[in-house]
Amino acid sequence: MEKKNIWELNRVGVEEFRAQEKTPLTLVLDNVRSLNNIGSMFRTADAFGIRRLLLCGICAVPPSPEIHKTALGAEESVEWLYFSTTAQALAWLRERNTTLCCLEQVKESVMLQDFEVEQGREYALVVGHEVDGVDQAVVDECDVCIEIPQCGTKHSMNVAVSAGVAMWHFFSRLGISNS
Amino acid sequence: MEKKNIWELNRVGVEEFRAQEKTPLTLVLDNVRSLNNIGSMFRTADAFGIRRLLLCGICAVPPSPEIHKTALGAEESVEWLYFSTTAQALAWLRERNTTLCCLEQVKESVMLQDFEVEQGREYALVVGHEVDGVDQAVVDECDVCIEIPQCGTKHSMNVAVSAGVAMWHFFSRLGISNS
Repeated sequence: MEKKNIWELNRVGVEEFRAQEKTPLTLVLDNVRSLNNIGSMFRTADAFGIRRLLLCGICAVPPSPEIHKTALGAEESVEWLYFSTTAQALAWLRERNTTLCCLEQVKESVMLQDFEVEQGREYALVVGHEVDGVDQAVVDECDVCIEIPQCGTKHSMNVAVSAGVAMWHFFSRLGISNS
Repeated sequence: MEKKNIWELNRVGVEEFRAQEKTPLTLVLDNVRSLNNIGSMFRTADAFGIRRLLLCGICAVPPSPEIHKTALGAEESVEWLYFSTTAQALAWLRERNTTLCCLEQVKESVMLQDFEVEQGREYALVVGHEVDGVDQAVVDECDVCIEIPQCGTKHSMNVAVSAGVAMWHFFSRLGISNS
């Protein structure tokens, strides 16, 4: 089992990436504080061909050396927009006929493994602040809440890891044919 | 959709966590450099009730303030062992009748979504160094290589994110009934 070399990985250039068909998922960052986490989500969004990132509120935006440290250039390939409030980002997505999902632990959540994605539909997934999660007012604006089940002592995961797990769910069902 | 409060999350204590049935997966860290990444994998392992972590080679071990920063206490709940070489860790797992999987991009890899996990079997998953990935000699010792398909400009993901995606694959098939 020989490791693939750089050519065998079929990496695409930035222009080619932008022209590629995308996983129909917009990742919305509701006031994510850590630049490491923002950069890491850019990197995963690049890997899974995510439509775009919407950076909202206190989120830092590229260009930023701190974002670059974990994005490693993915902030150049992945489309992104900034909104001063997450409510504005959701309104912008609503106008584009997007199903608004939120990644949170709420009373009426759908567990990730049970969340069925539909071909032809456009989705957004909102992830939240490292300590406070997604703001309740933002949760209230969403169509559905998706929860990653957990059985541990913390009942909380790093936002970049949980966003990665959820992006994988969408990519493996809607985008993988492009890979 | 009201956010769950701290009591509704059903967090378990450390002793209760240790007594709980586990996801039959050992995560093996082959010379992972970043203490942030090690801590983050502890946190995800806690969330998904992973059997244990094996820290190998240059991996730092708890107690460590840097690991704690991202593990947030999960280094107290999740069982871990240190081996000076990954080869020793794999030999230890072999004696325990474990199927050795490696998370790498190799020529004969099985794509994650196609990797079928079997009830009743004990698994290990090896993840590698931030730049060099899993060492080829370690890859050679494994029974199977699992690859996360990617379509981006980097063709590489953060090790804590990719380990999280892969742990989710095992947890959602073998461990979720405990959650």
